[in-house]
Amino acid sequence: MTNVAAKRPTINDVAEVSGVSRGTVSRVLNGRANVSLAAELAVRRAVAETGYVVNRAARSLKTSRTGSIVMVLSEPQERLFEDPNFSVLMRAATNRLAERDMSLVLMIAGDAGGRDRVARYLRAGHADGALLISTHADDPLVEAVERSQVPAVACGAVLGRESVIPYAAADDRGGARLATRYLVDQGRRKIGMITGPLDTPGGALRLEGFTGVLGRKVTKRMVVHGDYTQSGGERAMRELLESFPELDAVFVASDLMAAGALRVLQAAGRSVPGDVAVAGFDDSALATATSPMLTTVRQPLDRIAEETVRLLIALLDGEEATSVVLPTELTVRDSA
Amino acid sequence: MTNVAAKRPTINDVAEVSGVSRGTVSRVLNGRANVSLAAELAVRRAVAETGYVVNRAARSLKTSRTGSIVMVLSEPQERLFEDPNFSVLMRAATNRLAERDMSLVLMIAGDAGGRDRVARYLRAGHADGALLISTHADDPLVEAVERSQVPAVACGAVLGRESVIPYAAADDRGGARLATRYLVDQGRRKIGMITGPLDTPGGALRLEGFTGVLGRKVTKRMVVHGDYTQSGGERAMRELLESFPELDAVFVASDLMAAGALRVLQAAGRSVPGDVAVAGFDDSALATATSPMLTTVRQPLDRIAEETVRLLIALLDGEEATSVVLPTELTVRDSA
Repeated sequence: MTNVAAKRPTINDVAEVSGVSRGTVSRVLNGRANVSLAAELAVRRAVAETGYVVNRAARSLKTSRTGSIVMVLSEPQERLFEDPNFSVLMRAATNRLAERDMSLVLMIAGDAGGRDRVARYLRAGHADGALLISTHADDPLVEAVERSQVPAVACGAVLGRESVIPYAAADDRGGARLATRYLVDQGRRKIGMITGPLDTPGGALRLEGFTGVLGRKVTKRMVVHGDYTQSGGERAMRELLESFPELDAVFVASDLMAAGALRVLQAAGRSVPGDVAVAGFDDSALATATSPMLTTVRQPLDRIAEETVRLLIALLDGEEATSVVLPTELTVRDSA
Repeated sequence: MTNVAAKRPTINDVAEVSGVSRGTVSRVLNGRANVSLAAELAVRRAVAETGYVVNRAARSLKTSRTGSIVMVLSEPQERLFEDPNFSVLMRAATNRLAERDMSLVLMIAGDAGGRDRVARYLRAGHADGALLISTHADDPLVEAVERSQVPAVACGAVLGRESVIPYAAADDRGGARLATRYLVDQGRRKIGMITGPLDTPGGALRLEGFTGVLGRKVTKRMVVHGDYTQSGGERAMRELLESFPELDAVFVASDLMAAGALRVLQAAGRSVPGDVAVAGFDDSALATATSPMLTTVRQPLDRIAEETVRLLIALLDGEEATSVVLPTELTVRDSA
């Protein structure tokens, strides 16, 4: 039965193990009468050995589905509660799935143990599909998900696996261009950036958008890498104030990091937006909770979640799932 | 196979359906040789029909376990992110389970559809146990969980089911007594209370503790019922200011509601603690984020989660699980 752990057994595996045809396997499983007792016994034994049919059939009477989708967050649990984006994604996905009477279960894969447990959960067939959130390139979870053969989609591309794992995402590059151009149009000339992790699309593509507008003006000391947390934004802003003290604006790749950057700027006696204009990315609930309120790139998280669920359901229905990139817009408030 | 949906099939069901002894069923399932082909076939058919063994065995090679526990939140999803208590419970439970290489999956049962889906999930055997959070008395979920025969425990008692569903809880009554006595000792004489929903232990027992100290001095207009949300706390405080305008203190049954009450008091021009002393319950992260910081009853959520997991694991191991009530203490800060 070890192959159960490696990949989901198919009807072909049962046929192979039992030494009868696929048709015979199917007749036994459907309770048809025209099968010899020896063949039925062989099939039943093979079913038990491979874990195939009963495993799936016991789950649901009419279909082989569990009726649930697992949302996998590839981050420490703290992030789930710190970053308001996750609650928006979770609610939107829950609502879309509820319309189909399917449930969302949440699992956190913040470390190696967590990833193993998610992989085991998927391989054991407890979910019909996986919805990956905040997955970094080269996250070993991705390989585990692919090996489980459970249909998977991602909120935001998984870098390097774009052609394998369909995704719905905001136009990160375009949004970053909007924000950067806006800062330039406001007369800012010394614009720094705090990026996300470069192994995430929000990290890599927002930086591309920024350098796309500023071109060769961007030097190394103008860009600092953050980790999407508020304390990471504080750290990055302190670093940027050291490496690029003359800055008059900063584009920050997430609202949560921007909230941290605001604190550090204000503690350093730099007024916002007077001395330093700050533009964020997300337009989450946080953007109106900071003081001053954030000028920020709006990503349509509701629609991203909706489209991600749609893609997953298409996969479950055996249809093709084509990744979607949704447009962003700039919300101008007080920080820039 | 309809009985699969009604309750988890046991080895006895397989024996009954196959017409052989329990021992024979067990020999077949363990691959022993001394079984007739006819008996084996009967057992294999019964297994398929009842969904028993293969269903469980396919899930895990060594045990019949899925390796996961479902944490069920009987509240709208908003509450998960609004109330910091949930993240503490979730993290502590995740960590305790991780030590046993078990995973926590989260499901929200905020409405009838959500409850049905949780019930189906449990009946289909996707989790070894259920950990109920914030479950109200008469929540139809409780009956569904009991019918699923999946071992279940609760964080905080499920009122009316205390003898059926083991729980770990804070000493709600004792904690409320501490806070009320403290307010009295500070010279407060007109003490109002904002309770939680009375169909939760935190609602009913904290009110009991309050009236236990003040006795017959408590009249109806001094007590308003809230719903554990911040906006509910605001609403309740406005109501209390109308029904009991002369109040000089208020004991609020949760920090989140207390944060709402603080806002309303300050907007009404009542200084805290000068005009009105405010005491909360929880000592969550919120208690130090309000201004003034909250004097509040500390409930040991980490330990509650830990004990809840321990109870659940005891149930899974076939041991007895005795409910635990953990002591609370008063944390004195600035609001009272």
